[in-house]
Amino acid sequence: MKDLEDDIPALMNGLAEAARAAAAELAFAPAAAKALALRTAADAVERREADLMAANARDMEFGREKGLSAAMLDRLELTPGRLAGIAGGLRAIAGQPDPVGEVIAEWDRPSGLHIRRVRTPLGVIGVIYESRPNVTADAGALCLKSGNAVILRGGSESLHSSTALVACLAEGLAAAGLPPASIQLVPTRDRAAVAHMLGMTGGIDVIVPRGGKGLVGLVQAEARVPVFAHLEGICHVYLDAAADPGKARRVVLNAKTRRPGVCGAAECLLVHASARALGQSIVDDLIAAGVEVRAEGLSGSRPATQEDWGREFLDMTIAARVVADIDAAIAHIRTFGSGHTEAILTEDDAAAERFFTRLDSAILMRNASTQFADGGEFGMGAEIGIATGKLHARGPVGAEQLTSFKYLVEGDGTVRP
Amino acid sequence: MKDLEDDIPALMNGLAEAARAAAAELAFAPAAAKALALRTAADAVERREADLMAANARDMEFGREKGLSAAMLDRLELTPGRLAGIAGGLRAIAGQPDPVGEVIAEWDRPSGLHIRRVRTPLGVIGVIYESRPNVTADAGALCLKSGNAVILRGGSESLHSSTALVACLAEGLAAAGLPPASIQLVPTRDRAAVAHMLGMTGGIDVIVPRGGKGLVGLVQAEARVPVFAHLEGICHVYLDAAADPGKARRVVLNAKTRRPGVCGAAECLLVHASARALGQSIVDDLIAAGVEVRAEGLSGSRPATQEDWGREFLDMTIAARVVADIDAAIAHIRTFGSGHTEAILTEDDAAAERFFTRLDSAILMRNASTQFADGGEFGMGAEIGIATGKLHARGPVGAEQLTSFKYLVEGDGTVRP
Repeated sequence: MKDLEDDIPALMNGLAEAARAAAAELAFAPAAAKALALRTAADAVERREADLMAANARDMEFGREKGLSAAMLDRLELTPGRLAGIAGGLRAIAGQPDPVGEVIAEWDRPSGLHIRRVRTPLGVIGVIYESRPNVTADAGALCLKSGNAVILRGGSESLHSSTALVACLAEGLAAAGLPPASIQLVPTRDRAAVAHMLGMTGGIDVIVPRGGKGLVGLVQAEARVPVFAHLEGICHVYLDAAADPGKARRVVLNAKTRRPGVCGAAECLLVHASARALGQSIVDDLIAAGVEVRAEGLSGSRPATQEDWGREFLDMTIAARVVADIDAAIAHIRTFGSGHTEAILTEDDAAAERFFTRLDSAILMRNASTQFADGGEFGMGAEIGIATGKLHARGPVGAEQLTSFKYLVEGDGTVRP
Repeated sequence: MKDLEDDIPALMNGLAEAARAAAAELAFAPAAAKALALRTAADAVERREADLMAANARDMEFGREKGLSAAMLDRLELTPGRLAGIAGGLRAIAGQPDPVGEVIAEWDRPSGLHIRRVRTPLGVIGVIYESRPNVTADAGALCLKSGNAVILRGGSESLHSSTALVACLAEGLAAAGLPPASIQLVPTRDRAAVAHMLGMTGGIDVIVPRGGKGLVGLVQAEARVPVFAHLEGICHVYLDAAADPGKARRVVLNAKTRRPGVCGAAECLLVHASARALGQSIVDDLIAAGVEVRAEGLSGSRPATQEDWGREFLDMTIAARVVADIDAAIAHIRTFGSGHTEAILTEDDAAAERFFTRLDSAILMRNASTQFADGGEFGMGAEIGIATGKLHARGPVGAEQLTSFKYLVEGDGTVRP
């Protein structure tokens, strides 16, 4: 084991050097070449279905031996349907507009200069994720689309599945004449590789962690490389005095129960004191739908405790509380929210404006389910993750937010007085 | 001394807490209030000219006792003309469009959702700078304009001048009813305050260092808080085979000699082998203008050595080199550039396109002087600095780049299937 651990820095530095060289080429690769690579990779995923299923079977076997929970085994598993979804995702990203070289703004100056601001790739992205093999394809494809090289570090349980998926992406790169090192997978289960990645300033420009709070928290605490991530999605839904009962009922039920385990699921319902009757009937609906409601000022499944505010349940449980007014709701969210997504249910434009202006979560919604917090639903084709930081990327992170920009300035022998 | 040092964390944490509370208010302060504050501050700078000159005289006295160089004393000095410039700058920033709340993009989704992406302030900005008191006014004003609270840490030499300028800004805040803690100056010369700022994640969202390589390098190496900065401006000018002689001569002379000490000054001239004769005549012009030319493949003031490539002279010295072709020029810049600003002199569109596409400096220019690398010249009104990083801010950093964004999503009881 000592030899292997000693080799990690050399291994990782080698990957990073190859990635940097690939990134220099990718930065001006034609949009058509990148799209061809992604479509070819999609074809490969379909053609190699048997290989992919066999590789995944080895991972599932390993996972069962390791004693993974049923939920984790479910995330790890590939099925023909999931493989079709992966291929479809690759084609969807191929079909999106290419962000690189896009002119974001242009203007003329009195000096005679013409200035353009154009999108350019970030460089090398590191992606650290857990068991879902589909992240391999999504993250690899989004980084390629945005002209970035990527170093993928998947969960140790999914090593064979991820390796087989990266082989499909490699087939796409080869068909399009793009550098093989554009998409690289860390080829070891050694955890020292993750620790090394987190300190690779200069080698990696941004790290995107995808996974549970343990993984994301570790990356955020330890990384010297900038990170695009969200630690928790503690999403609030505020039922205003001027809420429409039908819309409110529909939205709250969907926000909690559609998929209770996603980061955009509602974790806390705040009810304006004047809307208590409507709030109670929605709580009754939630309980009838199988949700445990921990309530204050309402009759729930059981009383809420202090620990239930700001808690990410990620299952069929929700906290609920009566608040005096919209400002009390805003204060509650400022104190307990995680800056991910919050929704207001109201027909009152002034209340919606107040909620939108005074809160500063990445996503604020009116009369819509927090479950829409997703790059696909936003029209980005796919997302590499959702960010709650305020620097560079925020909300769903798609190909566009994996770019930077540069200024192109044209004169005619123009000098500065 | 021990007591004072022990107090630094408490002092700085107090400033940061007050700044965070001010930022929460500033985030939705009306544009008119911020503009009023800036115009009132400009009036105060003019009205308090005598106080400001007296405060600056104390700093100049301290600086002379401390043995500051003539150049540093010049930077420190305030004159009636410079004060008029500061007041004019405050009014210019007041007159710029307010970035906060601006809708950057909006679109509809098939789900029925209407999505807007709107600008929002970053939060709390820390500015660490050296002797120039005018940075106090520029940085304070740009942060206020962009809805951010700011903690200013000026050079110890300029403490009295900066304190007097902050008093003018405070008069503006008071007149507009904005929180006094929107603009705070660290009230001590103790250097431990800088070290503490660099680690204040959570308290400060971004740090902008303004000053020499020593200061910026220290901040970049030590900060745990994200930094917007450039370490060096090693700007290259490439004389292509298809350069227009008149334009080329004009631009190179201006790029080097207009103000040789600014970060946008040219530090290296690269000459296509086919343009050697033109290159030589430009080198002769530079020498005639008093520039020392350290040349390879050309007859300069003296031969260049390996140490002259990638060197920021910041005075009347330039390196010059003949290269085989445009790709050799690009390779030289990739090896020795600092990612700040580079210019190509050419009438050949294909060559310009190659230069623009294959290089990735923050600013790329064609037939224009690198001395235009400046927020004011770009039309931003003013700049807090120039950034060479690729995350969030790049190139001249004005009020707009001191903002983040959030998504405002409106539905009509819309739920996700």
